[in-house]
Amino acid sequence: MARLLIANCFTDELAGDSVRLPQAHLQTAAASSHLLLWFARDGDTVVLPVEPEPELLAYVTKMTRTDAATLRLLVPPPGQSGTALLTGERLGDAEFREELRKTLDGEPVETILSLTPDAAVASLARFLGAEDAVPGYGFVSQGGGTLVNSKAAFRAVAAGAGVPLPEGAVCTNRQDAEDAIMELLDAGHPVMLKRDYACGGLGNEILTPVSGVEPVGAGRILEVRDRAAVREYLEDRWLWLTNQEHYPAVIERYFPDSRAIFVEYLIDDHGAVFSQQGEMLSAPVANAQVIPSPQLEAGPLAVLATAGGRLCESLRSLGYRGFFCADAIVTPDGDVRFTEYNGRITGSTHIYTVIGGHVVGPDYAKDRILVEYCGWPVPSFSAAVERLDESGLAYDAQTRTGVVIAKAYSHADGTIRYCVVAEDLAAAGRIHDRVESLFV
Amino acid sequence: MARLLIANCFTDELAGDSVRLPQAHLQTAAASSHLLLWFARDGDTVVLPVEPEPELLAYVTKMTRTDAATLRLLVPPPGQSGTALLTGERLGDAEFREELRKTLDGEPVETILSLTPDAAVASLARFLGAEDAVPGYGFVSQGGGTLVNSKAAFRAVAAGAGVPLPEGAVCTNRQDAEDAIMELLDAGHPVMLKRDYACGGLGNEILTPVSGVEPVGAGRILEVRDRAAVREYLEDRWLWLTNQEHYPAVIERYFPDSRAIFVEYLIDDHGAVFSQQGEMLSAPVANAQVIPSPQLEAGPLAVLATAGGRLCESLRSLGYRGFFCADAIVTPDGDVRFTEYNGRITGSTHIYTVIGGHVVGPDYAKDRILVEYCGWPVPSFSAAVERLDESGLAYDAQTRTGVVIAKAYSHADGTIRYCVVAEDLAAAGRIHDRVESLFV
Repeated sequence: MARLLIANCFTDELAGDSVRLPQAHLQTAAASSHLLLWFARDGDTVVLPVEPEPELLAYVTKMTRTDAATLRLLVPPPGQSGTALLTGERLGDAEFREELRKTLDGEPVETILSLTPDAAVASLARFLGAEDAVPGYGFVSQGGGTLVNSKAAFRAVAAGAGVPLPEGAVCTNRQDAEDAIMELLDAGHPVMLKRDYACGGLGNEILTPVSGVEPVGAGRILEVRDRAAVREYLEDRWLWLTNQEHYPAVIERYFPDSRAIFVEYLIDDHGAVFSQQGEMLSAPVANAQVIPSPQLEAGPLAVLATAGGRLCESLRSLGYRGFFCADAIVTPDGDVRFTEYNGRITGSTHIYTVIGGHVVGPDYAKDRILVEYCGWPVPSFSAAVERLDESGLAYDAQTRTGVVIAKAYSHADGTIRYCVVAEDLAAAGRIHDRVESLFV
Repeated sequence: MARLLIANCFTDELAGDSVRLPQAHLQTAAASSHLLLWFARDGDTVVLPVEPEPELLAYVTKMTRTDAATLRLLVPPPGQSGTALLTGERLGDAEFREELRKTLDGEPVETILSLTPDAAVASLARFLGAEDAVPGYGFVSQGGGTLVNSKAAFRAVAAGAGVPLPEGAVCTNRQDAEDAIMELLDAGHPVMLKRDYACGGLGNEILTPVSGVEPVGAGRILEVRDRAAVREYLEDRWLWLTNQEHYPAVIERYFPDSRAIFVEYLIDDHGAVFSQQGEMLSAPVANAQVIPSPQLEAGPLAVLATAGGRLCESLRSLGYRGFFCADAIVTPDGDVRFTEYNGRITGSTHIYTVIGGHVVGPDYAKDRILVEYCGWPVPSFSAAVERLDESGLAYDAQTRTGVVIAKAYSHADGTIRYCVVAEDLAAAGRIHDRVESLFV
């Protein structure tokens, strides 16, 4: 029985018309798509938007003890938006589909693992007669992936499940948005504005009535003093906030000095199982994550785990199956408020599932901590591998500590992400400092 | 404890920018909003977009044995789109809110009944400190009403719940739509195209590969022979289908000669209760409904009731509470396929709940049938009432048969809707013929 992996980061359903996406987004998506290689096992067929660097493939498969020679990698012909994304157009390409069919050579497909639940994946499964291989096939085939990755739908579902939320609103028109913002500003609160579909804080901005607020998880912060200033802001940003009025805008109270925690689950036919939790460190947009979060108190953790479980139940009853992540903040008072959900493989999933559970071993969370750092400027992927080896900083299976490169080289900004495995956060910090000096 | 009724037909959330709606839509919505008067009880406070005709108010309250003098009717100041809709702008008007507060005079609001679940209603409830009075307040306050009235979300939720659907897809781009249409046409099937938010078949069109197909529930039918014709059709209609690319388009197989059945439920904290079923008769767009459907076989009815119940469970776990209607077709082979859902008070709810259950009496469905006919051209509402009285066709509580005017006079087309209460469909047809001759 065959396994088919589909590296579809940024689908048409979630990102809209890919031809209009900025070049940097496309490059980031292409690099992110290669995360799926961490999940590959011997004999898998892997569909990618673009060929991985041979050094990346060799590196990842060595870490996961997979025989790269047994993998069958397929890249469909380029689409209208090039080679960065696995769009519906590319997954539907007749020539690619025939090649895939030939590659599978009559072997039935038992599992289809995709980064993102997307109707185009369901359509490909239908072509292969492998509907049962897609978790939650029916739901995904009719665009359900959009519901489990929408920041707007999230607020309705979370409120419906009694999950604690920051005060706020989901707004389809500018007047409502203005009113919702003013209600929060008048109460003295900063306001986070979110685009419905966007990642890593890049779709977020903060308005604040007072100065000195640290923006965490947002690309921009603005001081606004009155309704006129809010109106002017919306005049300028409403079309951006709503993706040209394609989606509603999310408006919510921003809690300064909060911690950003995520909880991950796996949802299947029988229920939802808690997988792991972690913390995002931002300055101002996501630049590191710690798994598990080392200083999460039992009180907030219990709230996070149970409320996250209620979200899972809601999505499970909708028909969603697969990896699930809920993001929340823990305020300085210890209050928990949920801020979004992601029904897909996230940028954390391979860290704890594969680098943690498989490379470091099942006990990874007991005596080790995984800290992924973003944005290490390196000349190339292979230079980074080489330098880590030479310096003795590379991951060592004997000590169960060291550095694992976590992601493909990003041509958008010439950096890579790496995961430090260490005894604790302080030890990880020391390794981080040595890594960042390697090319200085 | 006060009851507050809010006659918000066509909300901002579901209809988009009301300023852009055609005049006829606005007039229809205004007339439809007055349906809520059927639900009014002594002492209720009723918020309406526009004052009802005094004759309508007198007629409805006489039928429901409500003391009209005890009702407190409020109409907020006109909004940017005039007086047809209760938009968020109008429900948020400061002057109106103060008047409402004065009207309630400190009496706590126990129940808020609105035609449509809408964040603007939740906002008004918050202003009154009456969040608990809104069924599913949390869900509604964050835009959940859009999820339970979307034809696109419907297909994902229904597929996720294992509810039978016509083959088809939810498409966010024109290429996917073209492919999904061709897949059906190539199999020899006509195709129904649906706008995400639209009522009464007015957002639907049919493409057929063969001639002689009767369009039921669609405003238009076109013969298309090949992909070029489909491409041309989409060139012409894509922006209309997607409401200027605000929403996805729904594409589904059209089954000619099917019956259109709806099943209604009431969803609360404890579960969902089946309320009633009925049949839409269309030629080509909805022009009559029969409650209960007289010739629905036990087999399809069992499928309808149980699959409808599964949809209810999905929406209940999302947090929706209130009236719920699922539409389905029964094909000539007796197959059941669900086609949309509506989480709101529909154009059927007052027929069986009030005209059936209250006017005719709790046993209405045992020995009577309710048939609502649309589009009776009359000079005025009061002329229709008078003529029905004179002719002896008006509803008679002794015989439990006759005609009940079901809806306000429509200034869009100079017609009214009326409901015939009769022993069976044939008897209703005879009354219908006599009614339609009254002004000829």
